Amino acid sequence: MTDASAPAAAFRADVLTLYPEMFPGPLGVSLAGRALARGTWSLTATQIRDFATDRHRTVDDTPAGGGPGMVMRPDVLAAAIDAVSPADDPRPRLLMSPRGAPLTQARVRALAAGPGAVILCGRFEGVDERVIGRRGLEEVSIGDYVLSGGEVAALVVLDAVVRLLPGVMGNAASGHTESFETGLLEHPQYTRPAAFEGEEIPPVLLSGDHGKVDVWRRTEALRITRERRPDLHAAHVAGKSRSEA
Amino acid sequence: MTDASAPAAAFRADVLTLYPEMFPGPLGVSLAGRALARGTWSLTATQIRDFATDRHRTVDDTPAGGGPGMVMRPDVLAAAIDAVSPADDPRPRLLMSPRGAPLTQARVRALAAGPGAVILCGRFEGVDERVIGRRGLEEVSIGDYVLSGGEVAALVVLDAVVRLLPGVMGNAASGHTESFETGLLEHPQYTRPAAFEGEEIPPVLLSGDHGKVDVWRRTEALRITRERRPDLHAAHVAGKSRSEA
Repeated sequence: MTDASAPAAAFRADVLTLYPEMFPGPLGVSLAGRALARGTWSLTATQIRDFATDRHRTVDDTPAGGGPGMVMRPDVLAAAIDAVSPADDPRPRLLMSPRGAPLTQARVRALAAGPGAVILCGRFEGVDERVIGRRGLEEVSIGDYVLSGGEVAALVVLDAVVRLLPGVMGNAASGHTESFETGLLEHPQYTRPAAFEGEEIPPVLLSGDHGKVDVWRRTEALRITRERRPDLHAAHVAGKSRSEA
Repeated sequence: MTDASAPAAAFRADVLTLYPEMFPGPLGVSLAGRALARGTWSLTATQIRDFATDRHRTVDDTPAGGGPGMVMRPDVLAAAIDAVSPADDPRPRLLMSPRGAPLTQARVRALAAGPGAVILCGRFEGVDERVIGRRGLEEVSIGDYVLSGGEVAALVVLDAVVRLLPGVMGNAASGHTESFETGLLEHPQYTRPAAFEGEEIPPVLLSGDHGKVDVWRRTEALRITRERRPDLHAAHVAGKSRSEA
């Protein structure tokens, strides 16, 4: 039952998983945990196995065509999805999968601006292709490596999204440009003590000349991006050329 | 004290964090959790704040040169690192950071083949640059998005590594080629029922002709990789040309 006097959470997350005990996990702590307690967002983890129809609560079967491992059944997954996300649910339905589109900060921002997300965590060899099409699942990958399942990837998506929800980060960080917002990696940072193991903070940062500090930081951000991520650096330079043309 | 009769864990992970209660979190469940209980790997989370030297247990200070947010102090971090990882520690020291080298399955495999890892979880605006150099920290990024801290990223690295440790996945998965091992995304998978909401499994997968199944899967893997990840597809084609030349 919904309590009409309580405001609905601004961002509603449903996670479908074989391991609901993994949630909220790290998201129950720190900024995300306080926002969860305040009702800025909600998180419901649902056990996929509850939607199996046999007495062994089977969720998977062998791959058609042979091969190792097991594949998650489309009928069981569809029943689990339909239970938390009716056909007119405006929330995107994500399937965490190494075959998916790589997660970007732009996609994170779009998710944070929306009503929430339904996140299906794959396990085993994957998920029957038919349920992906028939339930409109958006395959999302957090990176080019293989996890034991989609659960830790779901935690990554939610952590990235929740920190952008109104009020979560506090005023200190609002409006701040950070990595991937500018298209460059961040410049080096320094703080006290002034000398650490004999190494001093670069003098320009202590000069009090804000113009020089800005130039130094921008130069360092460009250098680090060029050295470490030629792909981002090329995209940044191309973007600048376009905006100046 | 070390019990000489107990075998040391094959893979020793130390995590330095302001939120040790986030660990083992999801890694205490399922395959990783059982391997942790068996002693296949070990995980120690250490509170960075315990190495602060003032009565407020301060770990951060304002950025030299100005700007928003706070930077983690090099002296406090160095003391925490030195406490868990002496100078002759053979384990790599990772700093989870959006400025880092993108994590790859190749780096995951190399970590899994080694003695373990020391993982420092950044928070706030980042970490004083001097401790990165002086303690030989390897900056690692799990993807081009911004997290509230390095903790969830550390869980990703450890989940990816632990599943590759001997005995963790069981025999079923051993020797299996999967995403990023072949350089291609995986082909679609199907399982029972034969018809799901009127949609049938592609007939070739039920033909019993293993040669035809292999050709279909390879063609689909190439198609999906080309459509979704032209970067991986180009690298795959270039790699093939080189190996055939």
